[in-house]
Amino acid sequence: MNRGKLSPGIDRRALVTSLALLPTLSGALLPVVVQAQTASSNAPLASWNDGPAKQAIIDFVRAATEQGNPKFVAPEDRIATFDQDGTLWVEHPIYSQVIYCLDRVPAVVQKDPKLKNVEPFKTVLSGNREAIAKLPLRDLEKILVATLTGMSVDDFEAEAKKWLTAAKDHRWKRPYTELIYQPMLEAMQYLRASGFKTYIVTGGGQDFVRVYSPKVYGVPPEQVVGTAGATKFGYHKDGKPFLTKEPKLLLNDDKAGKPEGIHLMIGRRPRAAFGNSDGDREMLEYTGAGDGARLMMLVLHDDAKREYAYGPASGLPDTKVGRFSQALYNEAKKNNWAVISMKNDWKRIFGFDQNA
Amino acid sequence: MNRGKLSPGIDRRALVTSLALLPTLSGALLPVVVQAQTASSNAPLASWNDGPAKQAIIDFVRAATEQGNPKFVAPEDRIATFDQDGTLWVEHPIYSQVIYCLDRVPAVVQKDPKLKNVEPFKTVLSGNREAIAKLPLRDLEKILVATLTGMSVDDFEAEAKKWLTAAKDHRWKRPYTELIYQPMLEAMQYLRASGFKTYIVTGGGQDFVRVYSPKVYGVPPEQVVGTAGATKFGYHKDGKPFLTKEPKLLLNDDKAGKPEGIHLMIGRRPRAAFGNSDGDREMLEYTGAGDGARLMMLVLHDDAKREYAYGPASGLPDTKVGRFSQALYNEAKKNNWAVISMKNDWKRIFGFDQNA
Repeated sequence: MNRGKLSPGIDRRALVTSLALLPTLSGALLPVVVQAQTASSNAPLASWNDGPAKQAIIDFVRAATEQGNPKFVAPEDRIATFDQDGTLWVEHPIYSQVIYCLDRVPAVVQKDPKLKNVEPFKTVLSGNREAIAKLPLRDLEKILVATLTGMSVDDFEAEAKKWLTAAKDHRWKRPYTELIYQPMLEAMQYLRASGFKTYIVTGGGQDFVRVYSPKVYGVPPEQVVGTAGATKFGYHKDGKPFLTKEPKLLLNDDKAGKPEGIHLMIGRRPRAAFGNSDGDREMLEYTGAGDGARLMMLVLHDDAKREYAYGPASGLPDTKVGRFSQALYNEAKKNNWAVISMKNDWKRIFGFDQNA
Repeated sequence: MNRGKLSPGIDRRALVTSLALLPTLSGALLPVVVQAQTASSNAPLASWNDGPAKQAIIDFVRAATEQGNPKFVAPEDRIATFDQDGTLWVEHPIYSQVIYCLDRVPAVVQKDPKLKNVEPFKTVLSGNREAIAKLPLRDLEKILVATLTGMSVDDFEAEAKKWLTAAKDHRWKRPYTELIYQPMLEAMQYLRASGFKTYIVTGGGQDFVRVYSPKVYGVPPEQVVGTAGATKFGYHKDGKPFLTKEPKLLLNDDKAGKPEGIHLMIGRRPRAAFGNSDGDREMLEYTGAGDGARLMMLVLHDDAKREYAYGPASGLPDTKVGRFSQALYNEAKKNNWAVISMKNDWKRIFGFDQNA
């Protein structure tokens, strides 16, 4: 396990860069009801165009579930893992959880007013985007620690829930939990209908993602493996026990931390794994190293019109958030991992898209 | 999370004491097929005598599952957690996993012959039980580290499986995986049939218990929360990735570590929790602190004839392995937690018992 200071598993150099792109702190005060994603049709994979990516999923499920198939997978071994940022929902220009942390700064300062004139809180409160983008790494860590730890797990959950209901992204003006890729929801549903347990394996905060995963993805909290900090058991004055979120990193669930987290939380090798960036490489390698039916897929963000186009793979513009390197692209081709073209393989990107 | 040097979550003072009681290293060389436990009857809780303990389980399940009941528990919240040592299987006179570690010492020395004359390995190899029992804490830790870490997770699983098939306990001359309390298996089955997800939450090693939990308890690996060390991702010479068990403790799943581990691995408060010792106190407190239907139970080892009688509760002989203190007994009575008398509440102890 990679351990060290608290980190939500994000690439902080990427963060510094991408903060420059952050148009504004999101409108956290506008209450909006989070709408559940709805499938466009009862047919499996209805939002997928026919092609090699869709076919790879169908072929895998057939081999894994067909009695007598030499690649048959016993029901208890049917585990599928999904990265979240960039694989299940939008990650550009900045991870939603980082926006949550920035949005929480005013409340943290209100509770501890002496922080008002202390960096980096002073800069975040200023709203000066350029200055926020230039905050050094150690300052960003202070923000993450201040907004993600030091409270009870119940208080954190309540705050995150409130924000998820109210906050909207800048481009689509919708709650972040609507910016889910409809084709990936259908892939999850199809795998579940075929007896697979679907897990989210994310560099994002485990406690954060668990707040909305049941409603948004149909994935219960215990099937979210994420970057996780320690908690500390204690008692309220009335004797009632509670857990406090501590600034100690237990699992940095990114890169090699993903198979390590999978072993800790699931205890065996997945049969299918979905990612979109260099952070998912080890998870896909680990998934591919066993026998029987296997499915490794990478989402390629090549649709600038409907979403974003980034990552050096196939000549796309370079990026730091969710970097899909040429080296990963080459490894995918060599190992016969399926690369999903958002532009060509998906009829629609989001559940709210009309042009399906 | 309690963290520090590697520890399998055992009470080491207890270990030192109980090693004196260890009659011999188990007969690991005798191959014996592990037999699955079979229920004596299809009726739920068939091995339980009528009485307050059985009634507490039945009343809880009725309240939790009855539509319209004010204590109804939504299906997705039906989580039940079970301690293992002393709650699901025999823990006296010494934890089975510790016997595994002692039995593994010859193989460790064979691989690294210079250890032959190094303590504590020299003493363990001598077979001198009295000397083994007197090994200081730091020496016992060396044995645990040497036998539980430094190998791939696959190699560990293979070794543990081999041992579990071959090793027999000294009193019943049976594989350890047959020394499961039949009434507790029935409680697990009854809860699962009522929509509960059953988890093992053990101070024992997570990787160790996961080897046999599916077959023995019907609990899949991902539903075993135990004392867990870090793993490290790496590659074999042929490029195939693997995980190595590292001597770094991530979760000491005992006492306060139990609710902390539950939060990490399950992400929410259980509705039912079963334990047998002071190590389970915080888990039961945490479980009891929510609203709606709740069930907290403690197994009292008061049956010297069919199993063992120990723990100062109710005037039983004192013990260090699985200590059930008078203070815990008082807390149970005060909070209306149900205390299970093995002697009075259970018709049979093991699946192989004839006198049911």
